Amino acid sequence: MENWTKIEQDAKTWIYEAGEKIRQSFQKVLSVQAKSNPDDLVTNMDKETEQYLISKINHTYPDHKILGEEGFGDKPDSMDGVIWIVDPIDGTMNFVHQQRNFAISIGIYENGVGQVGLIYDVVHDELYHAVKGKGAYMNDAELPKLEDVPLNEAVIALNATWVMENKRFDHSKLVPVAKAVRGTRSYGSATIECAYVAAGRLDAYITLRLAPWDFAAGLVLLEEVGAKASTLDGKPINMLGQNSIFVAKKGIHDTILNEYLNN
Amino acid sequence: MENWTKIEQDAKTWIYEAGEKIRQSFQKVLSVQAKSNPDDLVTNMDKETEQYLISKINHTYPDHKILGEEGFGDKPDSMDGVIWIVDPIDGTMNFVHQQRNFAISIGIYENGVGQVGLIYDVVHDELYHAVKGKGAYMNDAELPKLEDVPLNEAVIALNATWVMENKRFDHSKLVPVAKAVRGTRSYGSATIECAYVAAGRLDAYITLRLAPWDFAAGLVLLEEVGAKASTLDGKPINMLGQNSIFVAKKGIHDTILNEYLNN
Repeated sequence: MENWTKIEQDAKTWIYEAGEKIRQSFQKVLSVQAKSNPDDLVTNMDKETEQYLISKINHTYPDHKILGEEGFGDKPDSMDGVIWIVDPIDGTMNFVHQQRNFAISIGIYENGVGQVGLIYDVVHDELYHAVKGKGAYMNDAELPKLEDVPLNEAVIALNATWVMENKRFDHSKLVPVAKAVRGTRSYGSATIECAYVAAGRLDAYITLRLAPWDFAAGLVLLEEVGAKASTLDGKPINMLGQNSIFVAKKGIHDTILNEYLNN
Repeated sequence: MENWTKIEQDAKTWIYEAGEKIRQSFQKVLSVQAKSNPDDLVTNMDKETEQYLISKINHTYPDHKILGEEGFGDKPDSMDGVIWIVDPIDGTMNFVHQQRNFAISIGIYENGVGQVGLIYDVVHDELYHAVKGKGAYMNDAELPKLEDVPLNEAVIALNATWVMENKRFDHSKLVPVAKAVRGTRSYGSATIECAYVAAGRLDAYITLRLAPWDFAAGLVLLEEVGAKASTLDGKPINMLGQNSIFVAKKGIHDTILNEYLNN
């Protein structure tokens, strides 16, 4: 049986160390190279950070598997056993353009169940963390269970892309959602947007194209504060593939799904 | 003749003091009341902060006029003389929902010319400040002159509202802009979004409905780093009224205006 508290402590130590390395890197010139397209930037720091975390995990937990954005992990084809799902820098575009508003994210799952989630907003030095059943925290403060609000008092994260015609979702269903809420925001980091929902700073987050490392840690945090998470069709999230993602306070989730998306 | 360096020093002292009061207020319960509509929240802190700044300005600079969002100032009907344009809390919705991502903003104009600009991101403790002709700074670091980038490498602040059908602007002209850029963001604070453009973290900021206190300080900063500012129609900004606002790196401003908006 795994000792999740010990595992979280180790993950926390390594995420802080990785964050410190990233902060130091800002002194150096960043070597940025385009990956598959100009919207998908990757930096040396991405790769170095992932390799650093993998070396720590492999050394301490040789039986655990690793799924990482930069592809240095194990590329598991099932969720059996313990899997660390790692995003070394979520919000790479922010990292490159802003040197802020990005995060390191680690979600740890056992047989498909989220056990530990950590999201570290490096520049603002805010660590969101949770162990299943033990609550979610930002730094040392426990995040309260989320309380519902009416849709017209909600502030949601929704990028402009998704209310324009796009290849992934019928935008005419999302436009009325954007009009119904009090306001929309977009921060450009899925993990930070999930952490903001967990912290009650946003009431929902909707996006159309995420990979497991973008949401693995966030889902553990969100579960602890009583948020609801699904794809935008209301289906369960596939932990090994690309998904649309819709996380929200429970009532907001039901309202948007039933009154706006499923009709 | 005014001593702008001394005036900036005073303004800086008062903005830090006001920020400290706001941080302390988070201990207390916020009493929130709706103003004209649910999207226009106003808190006790808004009013208290404006009154605090006005008392300081009036006491030290009795000949100067004040234009403030909460309406405790002088409601000047021209830009003659020295006018302090004050937003005690820009991003009130963020203030209420997130207790972060809001700013105190002070722009000081003489006969319509921006002389001093200060934007204080209270929770992140980042003060953006400029004196005309003396450069713009974030805390102690001088912000470099902006360097142009191609549109497809630009990250711009553009709220989802403006790429959906709306009362203020033909959204079909903005949708292609949003599609042409690398990414869009929305932070929900005009002053912070202007400061981000000045700091090179965003390449442009477009919005349709701002009042003088939302952009007065930002325009001083932007001028110092060589950004271009106009309404969305490319016209000069009216410092005493509501405007659409389009601030950007020079080349990005020209490209968006000439190739997307003016045709």
